[in-house]
Amino acid sequence: MTEAGPRVRGAPRPVSPWLEPYRAVRAETERRASFLSPEDQQVQSMPDASPTKWHRAHVSWFFEQFLLGPRVPDYETYDERFAFLFNSYYVAAGPRHARFARGLVTRPNAEEVTRYRAHVDAAVEALLRDHPEDPGIGAIMEIGLNHEQQHQELMLTDILHAFAQNPTAPAYDPAFAPPPFEKREGWLALERDIRRFGHEGDGFSFDNEGPAHEALVLDVKVAKSLVTNREWLGFMEDGGYGRAELWLVDGFTTAQNEDWEAPGYWRRGENGWTVMTLGGARPVDLDAPVCHVSHYEADAFARWAGKVLPSEFEWEAAVRSGELEDAFGIVWQWTRSPYTAYPGYRPVAGALGEYNGKFMANQMVLRGSSLATPQGHSRVTYRNFFYPPQRWQFTGLRLADDRG
Amino acid sequence: MTEAGPRVRGAPRPVSPWLEPYRAVRAETERRASFLSPEDQQVQSMPDASPTKWHRAHVSWFFEQFLLGPRVPDYETYDERFAFLFNSYYVAAGPRHARFARGLVTRPNAEEVTRYRAHVDAAVEALLRDHPEDPGIGAIMEIGLNHEQQHQELMLTDILHAFAQNPTAPAYDPAFAPPPFEKREGWLALERDIRRFGHEGDGFSFDNEGPAHEALVLDVKVAKSLVTNREWLGFMEDGGYGRAELWLVDGFTTAQNEDWEAPGYWRRGENGWTVMTLGGARPVDLDAPVCHVSHYEADAFARWAGKVLPSEFEWEAAVRSGELEDAFGIVWQWTRSPYTAYPGYRPVAGALGEYNGKFMANQMVLRGSSLATPQGHSRVTYRNFFYPPQRWQFTGLRLADDRG
Amino acid sequence: MTEAGPRVRGAPRPVSPWLEPYRAVRAETERRASFLSPEDQQVQSMPDASPTKWHRAHVSWFFEQFLLGPRVPDYETYDERFAFLFNSYYVAAGPRHARFARGLVTRPNAEEVTRYRAHVDAAVEALLRDHPEDPGIGAIMEIGLNHEQQHQELMLTDILHAFAQNPTAPAYDPAFAPPPFEKREGWLALERDIRRFGHEGDGFSFDNEGPAHEALVLDVKVAKSLVTNREWLGFMEDGGYGRAELWLVDGFTTAQNEDWEAPGYWRRGENGWTVMTLGGARPVDLDAPVCHVSHYEADAFARWAGKVLPSEFEWEAAVRSGELEDAFGIVWQWTRSPYTAYPGYRPVAGALGEYNGKFMANQMVLRGSSLATPQGHSRVTYRNFFYPPQRWQFTGLRLADDRG
Amino acid sequence: MTEAGPRVRGAPRPVSPWLEPYRAVRAETERRASFLSPEDQQVQSMPDASPTKWHRAHVSWFFEQFLLGPRVPDYETYDERFAFLFNSYYVAAGPRHARFARGLVTRPNAEEVTRYRAHVDAAVEALLRDHPEDPGIGAIMEIGLNHEQQHQELMLTDILHAFAQNPTAPAYDPAFAPPPFEKREGWLALERDIRRFGHEGDGFSFDNEGPAHEALVLDVKVAKSLVTNREWLGFMEDGGYGRAELWLVDGFTTAQNEDWEAPGYWRRGENGWTVMTLGGARPVDLDAPVCHVSHYEADAFARWAGKVLPSEFEWEAAVRSGELEDAFGIVWQWTRSPYTAYPGYRPVAGALGEYNGKFMANQMVLRGSSLATPQGHSRVTYRNFFYPPQRWQFTGLRLADDRG
Repeated sequence: MTEAGPRVRGAPRPVSPWLEPYRAVRAETERRASFLSPEDQQVQSMPDASPTKWHRAHVSWFFEQFLLGPRVPDYETYDERFAFLFNSYYVAAGPRHARFARGLVTRPNAEEVTRYRAHVDAAVEALLRDHPEDPGIGAIMEIGLNHEQQHQELMLTDILHAFAQNPTAPAYDPAFAPPPFEKREGWLALERDIRRFGHEGDGFSFDNEGPAHEALVLDVKVAKSLVTNREWLGFMEDGGYGRAELWLVDGFTTAQNEDWEAPGYWRRGENGWTVMTLGGARPVDLDAPVCHVSHYEADAFARWAGKVLPSEFEWEAAVRSGELEDAFGIVWQWTRSPYTAYPGYRPVAGALGEYNGKFMANQMVLRGSSLATPQGHSRVTYRNFFYPPQRWQFTGLRLADDRG
Repeated sequence: MTEAGPRVRGAPRPVSPWLEPYRAVRAETERRASFLSPEDQQVQSMPDASPTKWHRAHVSWFFEQFLLGPRVPDYETYDERFAFLFNSYYVAAGPRHARFARGLVTRPNAEEVTRYRAHVDAAVEALLRDHPEDPGIGAIMEIGLNHEQQHQELMLTDILHAFAQNPTAPAYDPAFAPPPFEKREGWLALERDIRRFGHEGDGFSFDNEGPAHEALVLDVKVAKSLVTNREWLGFMEDGGYGRAELWLVDGFTTAQNEDWEAPGYWRRGENGWTVMTLGGARPVDLDAPVCHVSHYEADAFARWAGKVLPSEFEWEAAVRSGELEDAFGIVWQWTRSPYTAYPGYRPVAGALGEYNGKFMANQMVLRGSSLATPQGHSRVTYRNFFYPPQRWQFTGLRLADDRG
Repeated sequence: MTEAGPRVRGAPRPVSPWLEPYRAVRAETERRASFLSPEDQQVQSMPDASPTKWHRAHVSWFFEQFLLGPRVPDYETYDERFAFLFNSYYVAAGPRHARFARGLVTRPNAEEVTRYRAHVDAAVEALLRDHPEDPGIGAIMEIGLNHEQQHQELMLTDILHAFAQNPTAPAYDPAFAPPPFEKREGWLALERDIRRFGHEGDGFSFDNEGPAHEALVLDVKVAKSLVTNREWLGFMEDGGYGRAELWLVDGFTTAQNEDWEAPGYWRRGENGWTVMTLGGARPVDLDAPVCHVSHYEADAFARWAGKVLPSEFEWEAAVRSGELEDAFGIVWQWTRSPYTAYPGYRPVAGALGEYNGKFMANQMVLRGSSLATPQGHSRVTYRNFFYPPQRWQFTGLRLADDRG
Repeated sequence: MTEAGPRVRGAPRPVSPWLEPYRAVRAETERRASFLSPEDQQVQSMPDASPTKWHRAHVSWFFEQFLLGPRVPDYETYDERFAFLFNSYYVAAGPRHARFARGLVTRPNAEEVTRYRAHVDAAVEALLRDHPEDPGIGAIMEIGLNHEQQHQELMLTDILHAFAQNPTAPAYDPAFAPPPFEKREGWLALERDIRRFGHEGDGFSFDNEGPAHEALVLDVKVAKSLVTNREWLGFMEDGGYGRAELWLVDGFTTAQNEDWEAPGYWRRGENGWTVMTLGGARPVDLDAPVCHVSHYEADAFARWAGKVLPSEFEWEAAVRSGELEDAFGIVWQWTRSPYTAYPGYRPVAGALGEYNGKFMANQMVLRGSSLATPQGHSRVTYRNFFYPPQRWQFTGLRLADDRG
């Protein structure tokens, strides 16, 4: 092959720098699935969630669709029908199965999805072996692995939601331990200044993290630490869920319609509140950060506290200052910023252009990362986004004071 | 035990007449499940259907609830939580899990349900061994086995519905062969007479089959044979699905909302119509009886043909005459009779009183039995019932002429 | 034509027997509307109800559509667009405005509908004057007037529903007095016999009242009098609305979803129950017949009382016996009979064939008539029908005992 | 009280500066209603719209609730029940009638609302006469009149929606003439700069227009003129409504569900497109600005054109530059800015604090004003807001280029 050129016998053949990352990410997906039976992997507990089996197959289809199909001339698709079953929302990649019906597809079963993954892995590794230094392949590998990591997080949030519907409250992993956390009081003050935001430079980022650009941040204070369950209980005991004046009107309507009286997965038990976790139902730890709150709830809590949520730029500036605690690895943090395009943003051409841009309506930005986010997938410029009523993700908050 | 009394050594110990039927019915349930993977057994494709796994567990819970609990003083419940998970609708038997959420319960998994069934089987067989001649036990056994047979039919209708949602149209049993059928033309004439209807005598029947009573049947003719796909195609080609004047108004609204243009599970293929069967998607056999039609469709077809559906009494009288073909084992046959109580009917006291009576609203009677009905579960007085828009059961029709 | 032939001077010109009935019925419609403002006549409080103005126009369109258009060669339609606006459901008579949107049509306004009615009246009276003895005209007149009388009843039920939605509970007629009623205890016994049912002979009837035919009525007792509010309160105080075992399952679901705890239009007041009537909100009269109960409630009450509702034939046989009280003019009486076709029934050809037959699904028969039924519109064979959850009509019940 | 102190005979009594504005605004409300019959004023064609009669009464209740009640010790409320009927959404002002049911309240009728308005007018004018210089009264007057002006706009948008549901397409005002407009090509360039936004100074503004604050605007160009129907037709003819890649995913879902294929109120006629206007259905004027487009449509159009919508600050900066055409009096202009609080914003205490702040979720900012906006109600800092799918307002767009 031209790009590899003639080699002197015995000279070490170059190894693709993507081989080890590929193996590591793919193995992590399987590790996360290994706690689950075929039945567990089948279930879809709401339209926003997907079966574990579907996640495992979909991230593999992604490599078939965007890497193997275009790059391997004689690639043998594992099963032609999988493109229909396991495309998520890429309109440009062809028709796809209805999202809400993913849980109805019992065949292929989990075992066959394992074979499908092995088929894709073999083909990807062969491609990497044959083209260890192809930058075009590297670009797809990078987004493919980041994409699979996103689904690793969803595997945990979605199975937790499914188990929470089961009256017997099964544990995903009985040995699950929440991340360490210690509450620090105090505020980090930011002074009025034009600052630069968004991703620039060599490392990977999603398209919605750019273009990097300047924005004016006014005088503001950002809380050093996350809001805890103890603080949230104060809001609850002050009647927070029933006081319309604390809520956005859409939020209050949702709270009433859904009978919200506590964060998601909280249940009143005989000995106080319990919460459904990856380790099953457990007593609420008052010193832990509150989790599974929606944007509507976070906003109402902030108003009750006489504060606001930070904007995404205030959050990013605070983290860049190096003094902010608990930014990553515990809970995603709601901001008061609606999810919109950065100035000058345009989606990339083709199906991958559908990755982020088309969701820029009606959602709010979350920053940081959570206990479910895989290693190496956190970034100061990362923009997560969900609808304001959603709360099945690992979502919490920190406060800010925009009155300086 | 007193009822067994002292026995002379060597005298043969009586064997319960229920032992063999119990084993046979329980084995048939497992045979029907044996074609299915754990994932297949998990899925619930609509609120009216249930997972295979749930059927297998629910019929076992029935024996625990109504036989083992009341009759075995030291009976050890397999798992206390199963009463909540696997009660279907018996309000008097305690709270129960929401029907539409049965597919969300991944634990216990199929394997554990197999253990649960073995636990119940051992206890039931021990009870039968200890009390081989107890008539109270016999009464519960009888209804328990008939109940399990009803669920055997539902196992097939429900998995067929689930597979029909899968774009790859999997086969429940690739070797599935439809029941033999040959169309006979002609009518059976019944003369005006007071006749006796409903169950009486020693054999088993459900409570809704009685009290036996008299009713006047006027001069009527009942078709000897079932309506075929060929005849149905005539209705379709004559614009039947789009002509409001042929339909009940509720039926036409349903047909329009659901985009009906053919019987259930029919799909337009490149080489004509196919239909989803237990053997997967197959070409429509024009000489076979039409199946998966709703009452609304059956009624519209009859009006198009200038005929009516038989009443349930006309059907019963015709079958009792001994000259009616295809009454059993092919498709359930819609009648024009709404499902109501026979004169003098009162539900039995207690939870089993909820079996049939509380459903006597908005449903229509079907008579006969279908290819999915287990052996020994058909009766001339049997009253099946479904809502008029439903068509996922094996339902067809024969015509009648009520103008004599 | 004979009727147009030469006449001897001075000989009295024959007068159509339909002239006086026509004037009387049309005047009654306007009398019922006269209590209402233009705004009152505009409102549609639910899809099942229609605005007063619409009723007034629709019954006039009926004469245009079925009488004037076909019979008056040079008839000038008042406004071509009214056929679209004021056709109710006659598919064969052309497209029509969506039922639920009738309340949105503010133009023509009430005043213009008055002019429309005058236009139609003039044309009809001219037709009757010109053809005083034409039997074809008489047949349409008869059904047109009966049709208008049906809408006269609906004008009252619909405006009562609208006023009940108004927090100020306005009175249709502050001087409204309920019909006189006195409770009689006791039962009328019918003996097993083949009897003849349905309409026959010269008088008018709707098509669903025939063909007259025989049916067997078994031994049964029918209550001489209607169920009262006092008796209904006994059911309520015994927990009737919350006890699943008393209800059909569809009924209990409805009762729970709709938060039923008393008959329709009952409200808890500071001094006990009040009920919304045509005279505004008034205290519940315990000695009056219960009204505004659905079929589901009537059925549950009967089960609570250890009785059943009479079948429509039992009701008809009891009334024909001449000993039954309160059959007409107070409340329609739910029967246990689903609304189906009589043996041999076929709808008449053409648009008028849509009058009754296409509604023969999912509804229950009511017999008798109510306080809102106009004079001369009651008949022993009359079959009214509504869906089992509906209760905005003037509907009550009497009991029967089907155990002889 | 000083203002009521003794006066020298003959000295001119001071006249409240609010008297003439009050009379003018109140008269404008009645002028707008004068085109409508009592029936027209009754109708509510969707939950987001309100009846004309309700608008007329609600703005009067506002003066009763916030001015007369608190300020006139012996004020006689016109009717105690009106507070419940005519409160819109002020939770702190007590319970209120369900929004979607406003069209069901036929009593009070339009005539009585006229009397109600006269009663309020007399009391307000007496208060102004007695306290001509009271600044507290002035503050409530100011917001009360601005509030009434907002409802004047809604009176037109809501009745247009109602008339558009009427198959006969009635005209609100047959003499209606659209505002003059001439398309100017070209762009106004703004240079990167920190600028000041929001209301400051003496004039009236709503709370959501402040606090005034600085923000950085990057290099951008804003179109001098509005998008026209001709340009929109280009989008339509290029398949714009069916091309998923041009749309936000929520927008495309809405467009498909609602069968959008053109702007609101457009209908295909025999001679091309017509559009429902305040003057009835008229041919679409290709040279006029497009109107009745939702944010989703405006956003898709901009993407199709390779441009974006301006942010609300870009719009404000462009208008402040003095070179921007068509900013006011034609159509509200969608921006790409979600409706959120300005930094440091807190709602005022009490019921009036519910005016704007609680709606700051899921809506988009519109700037400018429309043909329906009353004289004197436009401002460069004015922030209108609606949900992205809504299009019954007079809403259009201009483009921007954020790539400098």
